[in-house]
Amino acid sequence: MKSIQQQVSEKPWLGWVIFTGTLVAVFLIGLFASSVMERRTEALYAYQTFSDIGEWEADNAKWGQYYPQQYQSWLKTAEGDFKSKYGGNVMRDMLEEDPNLVVLWAGYPFSKEYNQGRGHMHAIEDIVIISRTGAPETMNDGPMPGTCWTCKGPDVPRMMQEIGITAFYGAQWASLIGEIKNPIGCADCHDPKTMSLQISRPALAEAFKRKGEDLAKATHQEMRSLVCAQCHVEYYFKKDVPGAEGVNYLTLPWDKGFSAESMEAYYDVANFSDWTHSISKTPMLKAQHPDYELYTTGVHANRGISCADCHMPYRSEGGMKFSDHHKQSPLNNISNSCQVCHREDTERLIADVYERQERILESRLKLEELLVKAHVEAGKAWEIGTTPEDMNGILQDIRHAQWRWDYIAASHGGSFHSPVESGRVLSTGIALAQEARVKLARVLTKKGVDQPISYPDISTKAKAQEYIGLDMKKENAAKKEFLEKRYPEWVNQPFAK
Amino acid sequence: MKSIQQQVSEKPWLGWVIFTGTLVAVFLIGLFASSVMERRTEALYAYQTFSDIGEWEADNAKWGQYYPQQYQSWLKTAEGDFKSKYGGNVMRDMLEEDPNLVVLWAGYPFSKEYNQGRGHMHAIEDIVIISRTGAPETMNDGPMPGTCWTCKGPDVPRMMQEIGITAFYGAQWASLIGEIKNPIGCADCHDPKTMSLQISRPALAEAFKRKGEDLAKATHQEMRSLVCAQCHVEYYFKKDVPGAEGVNYLTLPWDKGFSAESMEAYYDVANFSDWTHSISKTPMLKAQHPDYELYTTGVHANRGISCADCHMPYRSEGGMKFSDHHKQSPLNNISNSCQVCHREDTERLIADVYERQERILESRLKLEELLVKAHVEAGKAWEIGTTPEDMNGILQDIRHAQWRWDYIAASHGGSFHSPVESGRVLSTGIALAQEARVKLARVLTKKGVDQPISYPDISTKAKAQEYIGLDMKKENAAKKEFLEKRYPEWVNQPFAK
Repeated sequence: MKSIQQQVSEKPWLGWVIFTGTLVAVFLIGLFASSVMERRTEALYAYQTFSDIGEWEADNAKWGQYYPQQYQSWLKTAEGDFKSKYGGNVMRDMLEEDPNLVVLWAGYPFSKEYNQGRGHMHAIEDIVIISRTGAPETMNDGPMPGTCWTCKGPDVPRMMQEIGITAFYGAQWASLIGEIKNPIGCADCHDPKTMSLQISRPALAEAFKRKGEDLAKATHQEMRSLVCAQCHVEYYFKKDVPGAEGVNYLTLPWDKGFSAESMEAYYDVANFSDWTHSISKTPMLKAQHPDYELYTTGVHANRGISCADCHMPYRSEGGMKFSDHHKQSPLNNISNSCQVCHREDTERLIADVYERQERILESRLKLEELLVKAHVEAGKAWEIGTTPEDMNGILQDIRHAQWRWDYIAASHGGSFHSPVESGRVLSTGIALAQEARVKLARVLTKKGVDQPISYPDISTKAKAQEYIGLDMKKENAAKKEFLEKRYPEWVNQPFAK
Repeated sequence: MKSIQQQVSEKPWLGWVIFTGTLVAVFLIGLFASSVMERRTEALYAYQTFSDIGEWEADNAKWGQYYPQQYQSWLKTAEGDFKSKYGGNVMRDMLEEDPNLVVLWAGYPFSKEYNQGRGHMHAIEDIVIISRTGAPETMNDGPMPGTCWTCKGPDVPRMMQEIGITAFYGAQWASLIGEIKNPIGCADCHDPKTMSLQISRPALAEAFKRKGEDLAKATHQEMRSLVCAQCHVEYYFKKDVPGAEGVNYLTLPWDKGFSAESMEAYYDVANFSDWTHSISKTPMLKAQHPDYELYTTGVHANRGISCADCHMPYRSEGGMKFSDHHKQSPLNNISNSCQVCHREDTERLIADVYERQERILESRLKLEELLVKAHVEAGKAWEIGTTPEDMNGILQDIRHAQWRWDYIAASHGGSFHSPVESGRVLSTGIALAQEARVKLARVLTKKGVDQPISYPDISTKAKAQEYIGLDMKKENAAKKEFLEKRYPEWVNQPFAK
C-alpha cells in the first residue's frame, strides 16, 4: 500500500482536497463546540440559584426575573385550566349546570355559588368575588375566617411568619384582604435559597407529624406531589386544637387513613359536622378536594408518577429542559404528558379519559338524585312529626352517603386518577342513600304518607335556590356593594388586629 | 509489511496455529449451520398443515399427532385454571363460599350446585357430575336439553352436522351422552385443512348475521377473541325461533348491543325470563357468562389485545414459537402474558389485579346482600297479601338489579377485564335493589310490618338450601344412582332419536 506522501507526490491536487476538507471539518467542529457551550451557559443559568430572593418573598415577578421560563409558563395559568370543549378562561357555574348541588348544600354557603376553578393566577380574584366569602361590613367582620386564605398564595406563609399561624387562622378573612395579593406561585412550593421543593403550609406537616412520619425524608419525586398536597387535599376547620381553642385551625383528617371510610370515621369520632342541612337537619360533612388522597389509590400513583409529571411535564426551550409551570389538565398537553409513556394517538388517549369520567359521572349523578330525594323525604318526615329517635339512623345514613358522594365529586380529576376506587366509593354512597330512603319509607308510611312524595322542581339553579329559601338578589346586591365600595379601599390596608 | 508466507517461513509453528484455528472455526460454523437447519425443519413441521385430519374430527389426540406442542400444552388444562392460592385442580364450591347465591337462585338449578369452572379438559366430566343436569331416568328424559352440551367439545359441531342444529338443540341432554366425549379442543376453533381459526358454533354466526355484520371479514387478531366468544358470552334458550318452535335454541341477546342495559332491554321486550324466583315470585334472568361483552369495554380490548394474547401467549420450545394452548389465568404465567407489555415486577402486577378485583368484589357482595333482603322482603309482602299490582314495580326492580349483579358476577375475570364498567353496572344494580326495598318498605309498613323483618340464617350452603326448600339429600342420592347405574351404560350408546 502506498503512503499518503507517495500518493500526494503522484497527484498534487489531492493535497488541496485534504487541506480544504480539513478546513471545513474544523469550522464545523467549531460551530458545534460553540452550540454546546451556549447551551451549557443557558443550563448554568437555568439551574443556578440566586441568593437575593428574600426568605418570604411573595412577589412572583421577583422570582420571575431569575427563572423566566418557569415564570412565563406560570403566567399562563391565567388562561384557564380545562379542555377547549368548555372554552378557555371561563368560570363554569356548576350550580347552573347541576342544580342538584343547591339542594345537597342547603344551609351552607356552597349553595350560593360554586364554580369550576380557574387557573392558579385567578386564586385571589376568585375568592374575593365569590358570594361564599360574603359582604363583610368591616375588616373585622365575618362571615369567613383568615383560614380561607390559606391556599391562595405566597403571602400566606409570609403573614403566618409575621403574625403567627394561630393568629392568621384566628383573624377574619376581611382583615387580610390588604395582605394576600400574590396568587399561588413560587414561594408556595420553593425554597428561595436552593430552589428545592419545600412545604410552606403547616397543615400537611402537622398531619405527617401526627402520623409519626417525617416529611423531611420525602424524596424529590414524592415532593413533586406533596407540594400540591399542601392544598389539594381534604381538610376541615378544627376548633379545639390545644393552644388555639375556638380558632378555625386548618387540619387534615388523616389520622385514621386516606380512604373515604377512614376520614368519615375520623369525623364521626370527633363528632364534627360542617353544617346542619336546612331541609333534612342532617349534621353534614363537606368534602373539600381530596385530590391527593384519591390519586394515591390509582395506577399512576402506584407506578410512581407524581402530580408534576403530568400537570407540569418537562419541556425544552432553547436547549433548556424545565418543568412547565403552566399547571393545567394534561388533556391540553397530551404530547408532553401522557405520550411520554403511552404510545397511543392523542384522540385515543383523550377518549380513554372521557370514557372513564363518563362511567363515574353516571354513578355520581345517580347518587345526587337519590340524595336530593332523601333530603326532601327527611324534610317531610320532620314536618309530619317524626321523632328525633326515629330520624337518627336516617340522618346518619344521609350524612355518610353525601360524604362519600362529595369525596368523589369534589376530588378534582378523581374519576380519572382512580376510577375503580371512585366507582367503589360511589357504590357505597348509593347503597347508604337508599338505606336512608328505605327507613324513610317506613316512617313516612307509618304516618300515612304511603306514596312517593312530590319532589320540588329544581331544574334550574334559580328554582333550586328559591326552593331552599335563598334570597340571591339580596346576597348579590350586598356582594356588589362590598366589591364596589369597601373592597377597593381595604385592598390597600395592611393587616391590623 | 511482511506477507503471511514470509512470516510462516520465519516461524514454522505459526502455520500449525493457523491450520488448527481454521479447523476449529469450520467445525463451529458447521455446528451453527446444523442448528439453523434443524430449527428450520422444526418450523416447517410446526406450521405445515396436514390433510388427513377429517373435516369433523373430534378426537383431539388425532390432531395432537401432528401438532404436539399445541396438544401437549392443551393437555395441561386438566391442571386447573387458577392461581395457586386456591390450590391446583380443585373444584371450588361457590355456594359454600358464598351462600347468598343459593337464595338469589331459589327455584333455579343453580341453587343446587355451582362450582368455579376447572380447565377445558374437564368440560365433559363436570357437566355429567353436576347436580344441575339432574338424574334422567331414560336417555330421552329431562331435565336438560341437548343445548346444554353446546359448548362442551368438538363432538358438538360433528353431531350438529350429522343430525342438524335444530335436532341437536331439540334432543334431550341425556340422549347425547354417548356422543359428546371429547372435551373442548382443536376442532372447536380450528379448520383441520388450513389450521386457521374458524367459528364452529351457530349462535355467534347467527348473532353477527342478525346485526348485519360479516364474521368472514374478521381479522386473524379478532378471531383470536371471537373463537372464545363462541361460548364465553351471554346467551339464552330462545323458544320461538322460526322453524324451531318449542326448541331450546341457543341465542345471543345481542340485537340491541352488548351492555348490561342493552341486553336487559332485549329480554324485557322479548318478555323472557329464565325462571320465576321461588321466594319473591320475580320473573328472573340468569346471566350466563358475558365475558366477551364485558371484555370489549375494557382497556385491553381497546388496545387491540385479544383473549389469546393473555390466556394463550406465545412461547418458544426447541426454537419453535407457538401459542400456548394451556388456556389459563394469566396470573399463572405473568412473564409470557402481562410482562410482554408491562415492565413491572410479577408481584406488583398480581397485586394490581387483586386490588381491582377486591374493589369490585366489595360492591358485588353489597349488591348480593341487598338482593337477598329484597327477595325475602318481597316474599313477606306476598305472604301478607300484597296485590300483584303493588308488587309489579318491585319485581321489575329486583329482576333488573339481579340481572346487573349477575352480568358482572358471572363474567369470568370481568372485574379485571373491565373494572370501571363493572363498578358502573354494580352501582346501577345497588340503586335498583334499594329502590325495590324502598317500595317494599311502603307496602310492608302499610300492612303493619313497620320494622325491618328478620332475615333467615343463610350462613352456610346447607342452611341456605334448607331455607329455600331444597332437599339436597334426595337430589344427591338420585344423582349418585344415575352416575353409578345408568351413566356407565349410556356413555357407550350412540345417539338415537
